[in-house]
Amino acid sequence: MFASLNDVAASVSALSQPDEEMREQARLHQSQLTKPPTALGQLEELAIFMAGWRDEICPSINRAQALVFAGNHGVCAQGVNPFPQEVTAQMVANFAHGGAAINQLAALADAELAVHPLSLDVPTGDISVAPAMDEAALLEAINIGAAAVDSTADVVILGEMGIGNSTISAALCAGCFGGDASQWVGRGTGADDAQIKKKAEIVNRATARMHQQNIDDMNTARQGLFILRQLGGREQAALCGAVLAARASRQIVMLDGFICTSAVAPLHIMSHDMLSHCLVAHKSREPGHQKLLSCLGKQPLLDLDLCLGEGSGAAIGLMILRAAMACHNGMASFAQAEISTS
Amino acid sequence: MFASLNDVAASVSALSQPDEEMREQARLHQSQLTKPPTALGQLEELAIFMAGWRDEICPSINRAQALVFAGNHGVCAQGVNPFPQEVTAQMVANFAHGGAAINQLAALADAELAVHPLSLDVPTGDISVAPAMDEAALLEAINIGAAAVDSTADVVILGEMGIGNSTISAALCAGCFGGDASQWVGRGTGADDAQIKKKAEIVNRATARMHQQNIDDMNTARQGLFILRQLGGREQAALCGAVLAARASRQIVMLDGFICTSAVAPLHIMSHDMLSHCLVAHKSREPGHQKLLSCLGKQPLLDLDLCLGEGSGAAIGLMILRAAMACHNGMASFAQAEISTS
Repeated sequence: MFASLNDVAASVSALSQPDEEMREQARLHQSQLTKPPTALGQLEELAIFMAGWRDEICPSINRAQALVFAGNHGVCAQGVNPFPQEVTAQMVANFAHGGAAINQLAALADAELAVHPLSLDVPTGDISVAPAMDEAALLEAINIGAAAVDSTADVVILGEMGIGNSTISAALCAGCFGGDASQWVGRGTGADDAQIKKKAEIVNRATARMHQQNIDDMNTARQGLFILRQLGGREQAALCGAVLAARASRQIVMLDGFICTSAVAPLHIMSHDMLSHCLVAHKSREPGHQKLLSCLGKQPLLDLDLCLGEGSGAAIGLMILRAAMACHNGMASFAQAEISTS
Repeated sequence: MFASLNDVAASVSALSQPDEEMREQARLHQSQLTKPPTALGQLEELAIFMAGWRDEICPSINRAQALVFAGNHGVCAQGVNPFPQEVTAQMVANFAHGGAAINQLAALADAELAVHPLSLDVPTGDISVAPAMDEAALLEAINIGAAAVDSTADVVILGEMGIGNSTISAALCAGCFGGDASQWVGRGTGADDAQIKKKAEIVNRATARMHQQNIDDMNTARQGLFILRQLGGREQAALCGAVLAARASRQIVMLDGFICTSAVAPLHIMSHDMLSHCLVAHKSREPGHQKLLSCLGKQPLLDLDLCLGEGSGAAIGLMILRAAMACHNGMASFAQAEISTS
């Protein structure tokens, strides 16, 4: 729990780092397994990544959490969404009854699913005319996200639900990395061309409004929190809180697609090292995602043309991570298998 | 079981087709699930694909087989392989003891693994100077592959092991689709630049030798079998047999990477429709794979920079297919979840 936004800002200044010795030992271990060198490609890199953060040569995934945060957005008043706002709460009920994609995928990937609706009956401010949240609401949402992470989990996969949040995501991207809104907006849950144009106008209005305040005088930690408060939403703030908490416990985070990645972009502004323990599961169909991934220096594991959210892609990403660790931890060495290497 | 190569050739002339009505029903089913239209991208296409072949709107994956065929190759006498030929048998022993990558991945993907070593002590002919197999050896290997497929399995994932078989694969690609061997050869298990150059020379010699015989007068079914016999190997022939048997039972096949895909390229020559029930799990690091996939009109599901073989990528592909079917079969409809759609 963070007592204040000052505490949040301070938390990014002394981040723990992956253990380079464990990474080196894990790489050596990989080189001894019964396969040609580097033949398991990204699976090997994932295992080495996990070894560094989990402080073990052969770490296990004993427990994985799937956390889905849901919020509502005042910007829906601008009428850019194909689905009505009550769908957020209806989908939260669908999660509770086991009927959504993430229910099936979390079960398949053996992740414990928990859904956190965040004051759905009190949408955040309409970002085109006002800040999304005041400081108290931002802190509360960050703390809900942080508290949702159980420190005994080895991996935390993240997802979200919130009608209107593809507009919020485009605004966060534009706020964090600049560029005209047209580079960041996409169809979301099915916007037509006119709605996309309107989304871009709203995003440009929101970022212009934010820039009326001088953020250049803030330090980067404060800048990130300011952008999140001005242009984000409760589920975005909670996702940031979860990523912060996971880092403190050296847990691996698996981010989902465009909405989830853009939600934590303010953390990258706070510190370029803040997302080092995070993997990006997949490249979304949403066109802004590739640009966002470039800004963050992240490579997605998968490209399955998904654009659902809920953590659906992150659950599949967890399966890839499990595949990596199954090979890393379970394969015989050349010596054990008595295999000729020359 | 095929009584003769004539029977094999005849089997591709009246291939069963996916049930278009089931595909349409599955597409309609997808449109009613609690997600924006098409938001699950390739997962939706996989579910519709499976519905068409399995003749059910919501087919299950109750049983998945993982079949690995292993063979040895006379072309190893040309000295292009970083690993000695005895490694094929040593790896088969490793499979039996559970120490290989495919053991871990098949277990994770819930596939029943069976490994079929094919006369490992009798390598096929050196394709640079002679046919790989006579007709009896070809038929025997095809039948072993066909017999390995259990018709009660819903999905069959395929893999291979055979020192030297990246050279065989390049030869099969050049034999099936033309082009200089340099377009088809790659590092395999770790060839250096000089070895790659030598591999290309060997492949060009093998295809030139094959073309001394006039294959243009054969029908395409006979051409495919001729290329397979001249340039292939036992595990390649067995993979072809497995794909033929799976088609007869309308089972989904998940192909692995470059070696596995090139093994069944002769089936594509026999009939361009022969691989319609096959998915390609991943794009291999081996450079010829992309060109091969273009020739076959196939899109891989994954790109994880793998180049191991053994069916390792196919096992991960099965996990993606399971994810698709979990959503397709388990999600609630909008009506069931009482979600507003406008």
